[in-house]
Amino acid sequence: MSLFIRTALAAAFTLLAVNTTSAQTPTPPALPDPAATSVDALGWMKGFPPAPDKLITFDNPAGGVFPRTRWSFSHVRETVPTANVWRGNGAASPLPAGTSPVQIEAVTFKPLGSDQTLNFAQMISGTYTDGILVLHRGKVVYEKYFGALTAERPHIAMSVTKSFVGTLAAILADEGKLDPAAPVTKYIPELKDTAYGDATVRQVMDMTVGVHYSENYADPKAEIWDYARAGGMLTQGQNYTGPKSFYEFLVTLKKEGEHGEAFAYKTVNAEVLAWIVRRASNQSLADLLSEKIWRRIGAEQDAYFMVDRIGTESGGGGLNTVLRDLARFGETMRNGGRAPNGQQAIPKAVVEDIQRGGDPAKFVKAGYPLLKGWSYRDMWWVSHNPHGAFMARGIHGQSIYVDPKAEMVIVRYAAHPVAANGANDPLTLPAFQAMAEALMRP
Amino acid sequence: MSLFIRTALAAAFTLLAVNTTSAQTPTPPALPDPAATSVDALGWMKGFPPAPDKLITFDNPAGGVFPRTRWSFSHVRETVPTANVWRGNGAASPLPAGTSPVQIEAVTFKPLGSDQTLNFAQMISGTYTDGILVLHRGKVVYEKYFGALTAERPHIAMSVTKSFVGTLAAILADEGKLDPAAPVTKYIPELKDTAYGDATVRQVMDMTVGVHYSENYADPKAEIWDYARAGGMLTQGQNYTGPKSFYEFLVTLKKEGEHGEAFAYKTVNAEVLAWIVRRASNQSLADLLSEKIWRRIGAEQDAYFMVDRIGTESGGGGLNTVLRDLARFGETMRNGGRAPNGQQAIPKAVVEDIQRGGDPAKFVKAGYPLLKGWSYRDMWWVSHNPHGAFMARGIHGQSIYVDPKAEMVIVRYAAHPVAANGANDPLTLPAFQAMAEALMRP
Repeated sequence: MSLFIRTALAAAFTLLAVNTTSAQTPTPPALPDPAATSVDALGWMKGFPPAPDKLITFDNPAGGVFPRTRWSFSHVRETVPTANVWRGNGAASPLPAGTSPVQIEAVTFKPLGSDQTLNFAQMISGTYTDGILVLHRGKVVYEKYFGALTAERPHIAMSVTKSFVGTLAAILADEGKLDPAAPVTKYIPELKDTAYGDATVRQVMDMTVGVHYSENYADPKAEIWDYARAGGMLTQGQNYTGPKSFYEFLVTLKKEGEHGEAFAYKTVNAEVLAWIVRRASNQSLADLLSEKIWRRIGAEQDAYFMVDRIGTESGGGGLNTVLRDLARFGETMRNGGRAPNGQQAIPKAVVEDIQRGGDPAKFVKAGYPLLKGWSYRDMWWVSHNPHGAFMARGIHGQSIYVDPKAEMVIVRYAAHPVAANGANDPLTLPAFQAMAEALMRP
Repeated sequence: MSLFIRTALAAAFTLLAVNTTSAQTPTPPALPDPAATSVDALGWMKGFPPAPDKLITFDNPAGGVFPRTRWSFSHVRETVPTANVWRGNGAASPLPAGTSPVQIEAVTFKPLGSDQTLNFAQMISGTYTDGILVLHRGKVVYEKYFGALTAERPHIAMSVTKSFVGTLAAILADEGKLDPAAPVTKYIPELKDTAYGDATVRQVMDMTVGVHYSENYADPKAEIWDYARAGGMLTQGQNYTGPKSFYEFLVTLKKEGEHGEAFAYKTVNAEVLAWIVRRASNQSLADLLSEKIWRRIGAEQDAYFMVDRIGTESGGGGLNTVLRDLARFGETMRNGGRAPNGQQAIPKAVVEDIQRGGDPAKFVKAGYPLLKGWSYRDMWWVSHNPHGAFMARGIHGQSIYVDPKAEMVIVRYAAHPVAANGANDPLTLPAFQAMAEALMRP
């Protein structure tokens, strides 16, 4: 492996990477000034051609590093191959503007572990938000874009992708096309001699698989890099002899520990689940998402997946959507699967199963100090708080936050300099909770 | 340069290549059986993963070679980076179904240089058509897809792309934002010491530039390969030291002969014109096409461009569209710029200028024996026949054929094994003419 590749591994990963959620409380790092590092301030990729020092490309590792990510997270398809998720030919479902009972940006909260009082506007800038939209009772009470992101431009969803894959698996199960109790090998015999050889589909859906695989970005030998390189998220180089596709990588995974005992967040589980749903439906992930969700919720734009060199979509972190369609999906989940166009887009039983959540006793073993009492089900994060809030989460701040009791959905795309959600959570989680409470006040 | 790259240059180019039109009468080659080499017969890219011998990837040169092109021409974005051409949020313009006064597939014609009689259906299969649509008086009287192409899937337009770029330049000229009489260097000072240093914008628009550049695919030293490699249409490899973007390549071009004297079809002119329209509009080609044409004609799907490593669209051959939107554009041109939704999408003066054509005396010097009496204007091919027919043309059979007198538009995407249009023309040109005459009969 060349020095170039090694450098790319060490430095460039975040652009095209999969996603994780830190199991550690972050030591607050010295963060760059959001305004001084915004796309507008730095002027990436302006002009024909852009100035050399303003250029962002796939083969320059810096493209994946903050602050360039504030541009590149909104321009993924311009650097890598992708597969389209068709919205269909119908009308977009309504996403009407509404009036908030409160001044959104002025809503205050206390960051986790802090006595400081911040307002919602400070959370938005302080977490390097590229776009944020608040729905209350199905109406858009707040919608703003910053820098490179616009209403019609897709942004990378990172691990929010996984919640789509988990939902698709649950839909196929509801339709009788996928058996969660079955062994993984029923659908993928090729995984017989891997960690998944004695795992069930349900264990994959809920990430309780014992598999030797590390997502520790700080460790250059972590398997996350092998995964990313196999999937074409990093350059493979001419002398590369490792796995050249997601499938080729997945069949190398070895068992570590037991299945079914503890939640362990590992992106490879989402890739295995993506493989399972392809086999169960005989459709590509892009076509399946289009048919089962995108067309049904009345998405207003096509979405797309990053793909590896053989055209396989990344189910772990490769989805890109416009923020408004993320909002439609969140609103559909809030309403028991009923989309803004009135269609029962997702079976009610599927949404209820997700909302009930997984087993908090298994979740606690993963050791997330900021997510006390939470669980993980069908690749969703379930808070079990009094509001019944549940989330889809991706590194650098991507999120769908559904608060059924407050009749509120918040969707956010961001380019936080720190990958782990632990860097966003101390601001975003209390801010979202405060917004819910503010919207509920009579 | 590695053997791998050289092999790719020799074998793989057609997938991602620019386009040309042969100036030679083709010696009819022994062509493969269309049915036996169809996507359905050969089954590319089925399954998860596809079987090794059914796999098509960018880094395998065979992916760009017939018969794999019958799949890959409809899946370009899954192998290379691309830029979106947004259709906007409005409704698609109507493309109503109509009833043809004749049995379309039964219309007969004689191939050029042959006494044989064929029918339209035989032309369709015999020229490896991926999709074809016939509009008569604005109604769809025929629409069929084959193999990998579907109504909602974009196909590569090859050099049909150039006619979009030429139309955009003419629109900007009509708006007073671009001066065709000005020197190219008014917009691109960087081209001062190149072939374009003393050329005018009009000479670029009509391809009467004297530039040392060969598109002869049979010559491995032809500049077409340098162009393609610079634009990322071929792998550059780790030791590559040549131009790494379209811009870097264009500034290397040297003058050969005089400007303004003879038509000479060279893809680099379209790339230079794309650069000019970006500078004149301060917009990317994708955004400009979206604003000036795609949104105005009421396209039903987004289109996309292949881009080089710095995100620059290929204006020479990189556009991908659905066939129905190509039909909308052709119908708009037939109606003096009025789109099917009734909007004056393209200025009438622009369409009239294109229809008047260029100088046939300059065109004849290029020596196209199958295109006697034709001319080239604003990157459109103008027949000057009694029907006033004009065309956009791309290798392997991509075409928009507008016949104003017959009130007919035919659009076609194809994957003919022979790159040059000279391989399609003997069947398609008389077939289109016969269809026009058949539709005009009372």
